Amino acid sequence: MSARLSIALDAMGGDHAPDVVVAGADMARLRCPEIDYIFFGDEQRIKPLLANLPDLARISTIHHTPDAISNDAKPAVALRGGRNSSMRLAIDAVAQGKAACIVSAGNTGALMAMAKFVLKTLPGIDRPAIASFFPTLRGESVMLDLGANIECDSRNLVEFAVMGSVFSRTVLGLMEPTVGLLNIGAEEVKGHESIKAAAAQLRVTPLPGKFHGFIEGNDIPYGTVDVVVTDGFTGNVALKTAEGTAKLYSEFLRRTFQSSILARLGYLLARNAFGKLRKRMDPRRYNGAMFLGLQGVCVKSHGGTDPTGFANAICVAVDLVTRGFNDTIKTEMARIGDLIAAGAVVPDSAPQEAPASDSPLPDSKAAAL
Amino acid sequence: MSARLSIALDAMGGDHAPDVVVAGADMARLRCPEIDYIFFGDEQRIKPLLANLPDLARISTIHHTPDAISNDAKPAVALRGGRNSSMRLAIDAVAQGKAACIVSAGNTGALMAMAKFVLKTLPGIDRPAIASFFPTLRGESVMLDLGANIECDSRNLVEFAVMGSVFSRTVLGLMEPTVGLLNIGAEEVKGHESIKAAAAQLRVTPLPGKFHGFIEGNDIPYGTVDVVVTDGFTGNVALKTAEGTAKLYSEFLRRTFQSSILARLGYLLARNAFGKLRKRMDPRRYNGAMFLGLQGVCVKSHGGTDPTGFANAICVAVDLVTRGFNDTIKTEMARIGDLIAAGAVVPDSAPQEAPASDSPLPDSKAAAL
Repeated sequence: MSARLSIALDAMGGDHAPDVVVAGADMARLRCPEIDYIFFGDEQRIKPLLANLPDLARISTIHHTPDAISNDAKPAVALRGGRNSSMRLAIDAVAQGKAACIVSAGNTGALMAMAKFVLKTLPGIDRPAIASFFPTLRGESVMLDLGANIECDSRNLVEFAVMGSVFSRTVLGLMEPTVGLLNIGAEEVKGHESIKAAAAQLRVTPLPGKFHGFIEGNDIPYGTVDVVVTDGFTGNVALKTAEGTAKLYSEFLRRTFQSSILARLGYLLARNAFGKLRKRMDPRRYNGAMFLGLQGVCVKSHGGTDPTGFANAICVAVDLVTRGFNDTIKTEMARIGDLIAAGAVVPDSAPQEAPASDSPLPDSKAAAL
Repeated sequence: MSARLSIALDAMGGDHAPDVVVAGADMARLRCPEIDYIFFGDEQRIKPLLANLPDLARISTIHHTPDAISNDAKPAVALRGGRNSSMRLAIDAVAQGKAACIVSAGNTGALMAMAKFVLKTLPGIDRPAIASFFPTLRGESVMLDLGANIECDSRNLVEFAVMGSVFSRTVLGLMEPTVGLLNIGAEEVKGHESIKAAAAQLRVTPLPGKFHGFIEGNDIPYGTVDVVVTDGFTGNVALKTAEGTAKLYSEFLRRTFQSSILARLGYLLARNAFGKLRKRMDPRRYNGAMFLGLQGVCVKSHGGTDPTGFANAICVAVDLVTRGFNDTIKTEMARIGDLIAAGAVVPDSAPQEAPASDSPLPDSKAAAL
């Protein structure tokens, strides 16, 4: 008896649009039922694809627009000139309540700029962040920010910690997720001032999870914590370095199995086992970067993904909506803000005579004192 | 007929000192002949180890000191209170011309602080950097800085590019190494101001190699460039993320081969091939982080390495000395400085009426204009 959910899809975003978008929606239809689709884009190209997929066509509508944002468009230019683009109209649909969430495989910078402009940030959140989950030795962890904010102050990092732990709890189902701040050493003397100030604040903030302290780069793949918090520059470099190293290793593995007749035979015997490993590490499983902190759910799919990957991004968006992620963020930020206003939360290093602030969390200057 | 080289070894640095230091020196003796060793540390602990290695003992002397720098000592404290430590005396020996280089597996922060204080930076170099090489899809690349400088301006990044390309040329033997600046996108609009300013400067600087432009995290393991230039925070996170991901993959591989009887049989057949892969990826092969930009060669071994790894760090130091790395840096910095002074090198973005500077490279403010 639950109400059906409408999803806005930017049908023209991504390297193989609209084909992959439509085929991905058809796959997601089976995994996440009770969903209707609105495809924003060129009707003449979308219609023939839907014609071949009658089950999908029945739950889909097309919102025609001839405009699309190119992959190399600068965010500011896309924001100004792209008011009638498939990406922008799909975001507008969320703002207008016509869709519960939006998924796009298009230009990341343009998508973030438009989503921020149209949807606005949640109360208590200064800046949205890009988050994603990835495989670790212990299971799966989430990392944010992955590129929305090149420079972050301590307030931003603390907000990322709250959003990351709420995500772990509501979507991944971890009751007490651990949160780590990415640094270049576990010692408190190391790292940028903003990181040290954020750590001082997190040690006394009643997170939905548990603050672990500083972690280093190798802790990311080890899964030392459930939530990795960092600025968008470092997070982007770390995620791409991990992806590249995984590919390097896969390639070395391929070469190793082909390096001799015995090794080839060995591969034939171990093939089934390797099929499972490949499935576990499949990047399509981890497709779907979430824009957290906005008044609306927005998920970015990898531009080069296939229908399986795009379907995964759709299901990530559906999860955020059905688990009430944004409502929980609002509640948590208000709760933490109340505690701070009541003087119940004072960072170790904050001056006793610090003036009261309207902001629910102290800014980097105050916390750094 | 070449003169013998003296190497100063901090015998008390590292998790398994002095045993690993002495055993490592004995292994290096065979790989890099014509070298004498001076062991700085506790004579009572070093002497019995040398007694078992008569060939090494013949080319070794012990400089006794009871003091050692602990692994958790803060750099400033070590600098003030460690004047008689094994680490400090070993560095002093290089400054006094008694040794050609120093190798330590001790506290990284203390070693950098002492080396900077005692040896000073090379003419034209503002700040030293930590560099290391690592395996890639194409072979081996070098990355710097790996943690000496948490924040870097464009001048620092340009100097790292020069040092990295000189290293690639003189030590790795690449005639025209390619240099990439680590960023979060290949587009020129992205990244910190310091990175954009460094890129503008590098596009017109006559490097010993070739400036490739921006690279992203995945380009590090792919080996897209021979020299990866970045600030010490990002470099440290990237290197450790890559190391951690490699370990994650190794562990998954081990589990995969043990997951069924067929997979185990497969491993037995492919075992030889995997031995070669393991050798290629062996972290001991890449042990030895170089402190570049100092008036003296200083190499840091991983604290937990074994004799094979420590011997590798010694050979890295010997390579830097025998290939005349520091002399080439001085020549290159002077050459680039002359070109800039003569007005032959002006970054795209520099104002035409920029005042002449004593510095061989424009500072970040000038280059960022």
